Amino acid sequence: MKAEIIAVGSELLMGETQDTNSGWLAVRMPEVGLDLHTVTIVGDDLAQLTEVVQRAWGRSDFVFTIGGLGPTLDDLTRDAIASTLGEPMSEDPELVRWLEENFARRGVGRMPRQNLRQTLVIPSAEAIRNDMGTAPSWWARRDGKTVVTLPGPPGELMHMWTAEIAPRLKKAVTGSVILTRTFKTIGLSEAAVDEMCAHLYDAEGMDFGCYAKPDGIYLRAVARAPGEEVALRTLAAAEREARQILGAHLWGVDEETPQGRVGELLRERGYRLGVLESLTGGLVSGAITETPGASEYFAGSVVVYSNEAKIAAGVPADTIRQFGAVSAETAEAMANAARNAFSAECGIGVTGVAGPDPQPGEDAAPGTVFIASACPGGVDVQKHVFPPRRPLVRGRAVAMALLQLAHELQKAGVEAE
Amino acid sequence: MKAEIIAVGSELLMGETQDTNSGWLAVRMPEVGLDLHTVTIVGDDLAQLTEVVQRAWGRSDFVFTIGGLGPTLDDLTRDAIASTLGEPMSEDPELVRWLEENFARRGVGRMPRQNLRQTLVIPSAEAIRNDMGTAPSWWARRDGKTVVTLPGPPGELMHMWTAEIAPRLKKAVTGSVILTRTFKTIGLSEAAVDEMCAHLYDAEGMDFGCYAKPDGIYLRAVARAPGEEVALRTLAAAEREARQILGAHLWGVDEETPQGRVGELLRERGYRLGVLESLTGGLVSGAITETPGASEYFAGSVVVYSNEAKIAAGVPADTIRQFGAVSAETAEAMANAARNAFSAECGIGVTGVAGPDPQPGEDAAPGTVFIASACPGGVDVQKHVFPPRRPLVRGRAVAMALLQLAHELQKAGVEAE
Repeated sequence: MKAEIIAVGSELLMGETQDTNSGWLAVRMPEVGLDLHTVTIVGDDLAQLTEVVQRAWGRSDFVFTIGGLGPTLDDLTRDAIASTLGEPMSEDPELVRWLEENFARRGVGRMPRQNLRQTLVIPSAEAIRNDMGTAPSWWARRDGKTVVTLPGPPGELMHMWTAEIAPRLKKAVTGSVILTRTFKTIGLSEAAVDEMCAHLYDAEGMDFGCYAKPDGIYLRAVARAPGEEVALRTLAAAEREARQILGAHLWGVDEETPQGRVGELLRERGYRLGVLESLTGGLVSGAITETPGASEYFAGSVVVYSNEAKIAAGVPADTIRQFGAVSAETAEAMANAARNAFSAECGIGVTGVAGPDPQPGEDAAPGTVFIASACPGGVDVQKHVFPPRRPLVRGRAVAMALLQLAHELQKAGVEAE
Repeated sequence: MKAEIIAVGSELLMGETQDTNSGWLAVRMPEVGLDLHTVTIVGDDLAQLTEVVQRAWGRSDFVFTIGGLGPTLDDLTRDAIASTLGEPMSEDPELVRWLEENFARRGVGRMPRQNLRQTLVIPSAEAIRNDMGTAPSWWARRDGKTVVTLPGPPGELMHMWTAEIAPRLKKAVTGSVILTRTFKTIGLSEAAVDEMCAHLYDAEGMDFGCYAKPDGIYLRAVARAPGEEVALRTLAAAEREARQILGAHLWGVDEETPQGRVGELLRERGYRLGVLESLTGGLVSGAITETPGASEYFAGSVVVYSNEAKIAAGVPADTIRQFGAVSAETAEAMANAARNAFSAECGIGVTGVAGPDPQPGEDAAPGTVFIASACPGGVDVQKHVFPPRRPLVRGRAVAMALLQLAHELQKAGVEAE
């Protein structure tokens, strides 16, 4: 069935806010059996927005709007849909009560009058409450077509989609099922993955795509089938083959992240981790603590942004003097110091030059990063040279540090078996 | 003059590739005097793409297409434009020569026949060569309207825009200039900012919009004027008024970030900063070190993810025992310990429950965060209760910690004057 997304907001056209919602939603369309054919980004202009909604309503089975559900007068999504369907809007007394309670619970004072706009509905629309904000969604269904309004803040949108909208769609959408699986690899170029997996591409009912990401090369398999069971079987076969071909280069599937993988492995082994990081400035530890309950295996981190701080955290002054702060030796000393400082079995040490400028007193060029991962089995040190763009260098260094530790932990596990 | 963007490619609809080009281009439209009203993302489908191009050609002065200029049969942008303008395509002998030389120069062998598709032009189009790839752009002009084709790879697009397209547009576009300024506030709800600033909205030649962001509520002013000078004057007047109305709630303008603001103020005062953070897991320090040269004012951070780590970093065990790890008293002790540990004038301490689950042994509900900022002038502690979604709690805590310190530093500066 044909789907269409309309992202609403002049801030998206002024480039001030990047529309990340459409992309997030686009990946999820196949999972609920929908075939997305168009995304339109349009400003807070009633005439123009109405025109876009009318066209979408005319040609698509499912229309998803994003944003424009706030309480202010430039939030016009509700009005455009009401006008397209030719239905009047009125305040829903239950929504009014819910929203007043929402304000009371958050202790932010009485609900301002203008928020009443958020309680408006049309006869064809069922209102779906939003636990995370003040904008309920509409699920409006008529003449075999459906329009769903989603809130603009990404957190609210993701929550509403996962908790409320996707489950309803799975019941409402009929036709063929499209399921995907993403295989995440490290240590191979895009061309190499492409070449190694080329013979998979001929499988019936399957499409493949190769993408370069900060944490390696992804291979994405898309299965189209009359039913979920067949699609799952096709994907399982693809996964078996991909695992065989890619071997240890394959570090994760689908939503798995480097930090999630490290967490699982540490938990399995009963190890704890300490970190000493310089150029990543806290982001290695920030990534590890994304996972709820990380305190079980994460002991702590010191961000050592100067030589004095490195020495205070236990890196021998001699090592820095002899080899430089950006060196394999200092990275190794940092990983060992991290273990000692936090009495942990495992340690990560990351040092490098994030750029854009060279670091005074260091020979290493911007983009150079040394990563040491220490496990009970030993210490591994790797050197990387990334393109010298500061956010890119820091992001890659975080992903590589985590994947390197995961690799060491996995190897240790296999050897122990 | 009205502009419209059409991003072409089925991969953008599958969510495999995020369309970052449209956002990049959108920010640049006002700079060349164009008013962007719609962005459409459409797949590699000739009928549908032609429909979108026809509509755009009918209603916009400038149409920019992105992508679909490759050599393969699913690269259909040229065909859709030719069909819209009703003009035949033919190979341009000069382009053929240029492309053959391009292949020869890169030493990638003879040009494959299918690349000849990239040398096709229509009579109304001037071809603009692309130094970074094989797809030339069209600058097609007829009946006072213009359509420009841009290549899909972001590096090529940025280069073509900057080197070729933007300079031509500055000559071709007539009419009004659009400039914007964003005022960033903290400590006020969206509705409150909206209400306080409502009377500004009537100013001639100005539009305003209110947006909720992790670091507070943004008010964006858009000025349209016959020339740059007038637009700048209008914005300056709006800024004076906004500063008066919003007072200390206004913490930044345009590209300013909390971390940038903190960095500037620390540098001005000649202070250094140390951080002790728990629930933010390194992200406060990760944000501060985004800025090149942060080592001038950033001393370091300890991520203290357990009570033992907090005590080891200098938080009195008694304070934690008596008040709990998630308390105003512990936050304050953390800020002071951060100062001592790094011999810095300023310290930040952040403790809280990121959730989603409550923290064993702590009374505080998920989403509760205590932030202490210590300056030579004294220590300030604030309590926040954020909606208990882990990434949101952590993100907000980072922004609030930085803005709180910025506020204290600024206050101290004003008092000293």
